[in-house]
Amino acid sequence: MDFWFEFASTYSYPAAMRVSRLAQAAGVTVRWRPFLLGPIFGAQGWNDSPFNIYPVKGKYMWRDLERICAREKLPLKLPPLRFPQNGVKAARLALVGEKDGWTDRFVRGVYTANFAQQEDIADDATLATILHRIGADPDAAVPAANTPQNKERLRKQTDEAIARGIFGAPSFTAGDELFWGNDRLEEAIEWAATSSMSRPT
Amino acid sequence: MDFWFEFASTYSYPAAMRVSRLAQAAGVTVRWRPFLLGPIFGAQGWNDSPFNIYPVKGKYMWRDLERICAREKLPLKLPPLRFPQNGVKAARLALVGEKDGWTDRFVRGVYTANFAQQEDIADDATLATILHRIGADPDAAVPAANTPQNKERLRKQTDEAIARGIFGAPSFTAGDELFWGNDRLEEAIEWAATSSMSRPT
Repeated sequence: MDFWFEFASTYSYPAAMRVSRLAQAAGVTVRWRPFLLGPIFGAQGWNDSPFNIYPVKGKYMWRDLERICAREKLPLKLPPLRFPQNGVKAARLALVGEKDGWTDRFVRGVYTANFAQQEDIADDATLATILHRIGADPDAAVPAANTPQNKERLRKQTDEAIARGIFGAPSFTAGDELFWGNDRLEEAIEWAATSSMSRPT
Repeated sequence: MDFWFEFASTYSYPAAMRVSRLAQAAGVTVRWRPFLLGPIFGAQGWNDSPFNIYPVKGKYMWRDLERICAREKLPLKLPPLRFPQNGVKAARLALVGEKDGWTDRFVRGVYTANFAQQEDIADDATLATILHRIGADPDAAVPAANTPQNKERLRKQTDEAIARGIFGAPSFTAGDELFWGNDRLEEAIEWAATSSMSRPT
């Protein structure tokens, strides 16, 4: 199953914190796929988060997130430092982490910094601290994140998200089947577990 | 618990078909509250359903609804006759049904006509057939629905929805707590069942 997330996305936070545990219990392998919502929202005429453009919806979202985090026993600190935060640097690093296998731990660290610790995830120092904590080397990871090839990889991943019909985060894909929202995580995993896509061939 | 619905709303269909059973099992009383999304969407600059304005989201919604209905064993016929349908007449009738206690059966009949039978729910004949089927008298109900007082009641109910921070359908309120979406039905019922609001005083 592919887990599509954007670091600025609030509902991606509980999804990112839950996905490994639930997928493992179901025997489903997760591919972590950072992408950017900016180009997708821009194409719809939005230059900001819809939760800022439609404040009534935004107010509801924060309360809903509060209930979800309470239920999942996830720390949440509101109001956030700022919303949405710029997650481009973190997304590029998440791609780099694949080679050494620290992407999942890094992603959870960034979401925790954003939504539970009110830290600036666009700040190099914040990202370096997270990398250190998970045993990754910022002096190797940061330059690797900023190569033209890696930047292009993130752009291509966003293009693939658009091609798959993704319009928000988090999203999950299992084969051609698309699921949107933290609410659909369980259903997506069930779909992946019972579809032939996830079985060894 | 108050169940806020709009007849044009797709996700209100599974919610309307499930709410009585789930609420009864939890010992929660449901108040059926039709309202209109038109004025709410209009205030956001939308003159159509967001599922039509953003076709990528619309395409996903129909597939998601298909999965939900399959899971709940609810009939669904796609593509619908038209979307969104005008549910103003049906909403006025739903208010009239309160006095004789047929609102819930009427509402389920209208949703079934719209999403499972591809019927025109703005058509007087469709509504009369539903009323007959549930044992209500169209010759009494329709004039009562069209009185200035009843029309005003629906407007006031929509104003109350806006005042409560409602921005979409279905929504559920238990005291001041708001839940949005068919996905939140279980959580709303649980909230209502455990909050003091629903206990006899």
